[in-house]
Amino acid sequence: MNNDFISQIRQGDPLAVARAITRVERGAFAEHDETARKLIRALFAFTGHAHIIGVTGAPGTGKSTLVNALAQEYRARGKRVAIIAVDPSSPFSGGALLGDRLRMQDLAGTGIFIRSMASRGQLGGLAAAVSDAILVLDAAGFEIILVETVGAGQGEVDIAKHAHTTLVLEAPGLGDEIQAIKAGILEIADVLVVNKADRDGANAAVAALEMNLSLNPALGIQNNSDKTAWRPPVIKTIALTAEGIGDVVDAIARHETFLNKNGLRANKERARFQDALRELLQRELLQRTLRTLPPARWDELIRQITERERDLYSVADEIIAQHSVPPNAGV
Amino acid sequence: MNNDFISQIRQGDPLAVARAITRVERGAFAEHDETARKLIRALFAFTGHAHIIGVTGAPGTGKSTLVNALAQEYRARGKRVAIIAVDPSSPFSGGALLGDRLRMQDLAGTGIFIRSMASRGQLGGLAAAVSDAILVLDAAGFEIILVETVGAGQGEVDIAKHAHTTLVLEAPGLGDEIQAIKAGILEIADVLVVNKADRDGANAAVAALEMNLSLNPALGIQNNSDKTAWRPPVIKTIALTAEGIGDVVDAIARHETFLNKNGLRANKERARFQDALRELLQRELLQRTLRTLPPARWDELIRQITERERDLYSVADEIIAQHSVPPNAGV
Repeated sequence: MNNDFISQIRQGDPLAVARAITRVERGAFAEHDETARKLIRALFAFTGHAHIIGVTGAPGTGKSTLVNALAQEYRARGKRVAIIAVDPSSPFSGGALLGDRLRMQDLAGTGIFIRSMASRGQLGGLAAAVSDAILVLDAAGFEIILVETVGAGQGEVDIAKHAHTTLVLEAPGLGDEIQAIKAGILEIADVLVVNKADRDGANAAVAALEMNLSLNPALGIQNNSDKTAWRPPVIKTIALTAEGIGDVVDAIARHETFLNKNGLRANKERARFQDALRELLQRELLQRTLRTLPPARWDELIRQITERERDLYSVADEIIAQHSVPPNAGV
Repeated sequence: MNNDFISQIRQGDPLAVARAITRVERGAFAEHDETARKLIRALFAFTGHAHIIGVTGAPGTGKSTLVNALAQEYRARGKRVAIIAVDPSSPFSGGALLGDRLRMQDLAGTGIFIRSMASRGQLGGLAAAVSDAILVLDAAGFEIILVETVGAGQGEVDIAKHAHTTLVLEAPGLGDEIQAIKAGILEIADVLVVNKADRDGANAAVAALEMNLSLNPALGIQNNSDKTAWRPPVIKTIALTAEGIGDVVDAIARHETFLNKNGLRANKERARFQDALRELLQRELLQRTLRTLPPARWDELIRQITERERDLYSVADEIIAQHSVPPNAGV
């Protein structure tokens, strides 16, 4: 790995950081990419300083506007800020949301780094790409990393696991189905935000959330031994005019203090890296196993399955028995 | 595997089917579960007859109502129908959507089998559980299997890959962000449905979708050699009053005929089982590798990572080198 490149990244040079993220992204989706591995290995020791904030919520809650407003508030408070906007909606083309260009214009010249990442329809690739991109930004000295996801699927929940603080966004008047969905999403919230608070129903939305929190005492309790409780605050915002944004940043700071004071940041880090390591192992084990299997044999096995000559499980057993990487075979 | 149980499942006995799905679900999330494996192995030869329909769309589009209406229309046409409602929103409690009980009451006594499945926050578990549940229902003689997902995340896209025909649902007036999201989701659509067509903006939504289809000639073209094109029809429905539901069922039938006539059903089956096999291999390889790793060693490796003594990739390399299942080690 080129030392100049590493030091440019560590100095936070935006072009070097962008190039590094492109590399780790390519690596996460590629079959085998030594460049990406080497890059993360070179940067890893310099990570662990950023506060990672996940922002999730249903479509229509105004996530992008809120995230931009939060980033600007952090900027105003003198912090170095990066945004990763995860767009899982375009699995095949890898295209970004239409609004992306507008957003980037909003942030141009503010010193805020923004990057959108899309799934490419591959198992686990997106979560790995986001995980590695966070490491790059962390090593580049960004103190605040905002990771924005659509927040309806399993992938988003996985990505939320990378965060130290998870914001869940609501907005009034999105209909019953969305109200029902939030019941599950609530479980991952450290801070609850009711955006578009100038709309009818904002106070009702706040009251409903507060009631949910009171009814379910498990919500907001962090995974810890001494049961020190964090009750997620519910904050009203109008992201478009930055109303309430300072309160959200203050709440995140209180959560960060809470984590540090109770030794819970370490728990979050452990959970994050347990997940990342399991995912990396899955990916590597599969790639190494398939590399030893001739493509024609793979096609034949798939044919046997589709024609119901054999079942999935017996084929998997055969592949593993015959083609696993033997111990100490090296990389 | 108890032969009575297998024959009860094959006869479509609802209690046996429900019990079988519970077993494969438990198996998909468990570390190792021989019962689930044996069940799928015993049933696999009897699968391959169902038409699998994926239904996906943003929250608020009325998916559940549409899926119920489709199921009832298929019932009226004399088909045996099952529904799998995938709820990825409650990763930790595994709880189902609030509306579930109401839905089940709607369908009580209709002979329609319905089952909701939730993620339990584990890597890949949900997709595997859904994949196996489809196999159980297929072996149980259900001719139509409707798989309903929220459709915003990677997990939903993965699940859509199991389907022979994918319906993508839209509704007028859901706001710009949702409009942007559909750009990606469109790529997986075989049939497009604009539900809640009595609302303002329904015709505009149809026109926008038709324009998207015309602008992007790649949409709807199935993965085939002779470039036989399928242009996804755009159909207006009011699921609440069953308006347009017959048209949707007709369009699905046309798509099924198209797949069969062009040899494309086999392609879909191949894609489905390639994915399922890759996912199964990932899961099995990880489980077998971790089984040989003492928990204390795992904890120590995670500690080294969180304290940045070592990076993820070198730890993964070490685990694979020392703890991979040797060839022919058996199950």
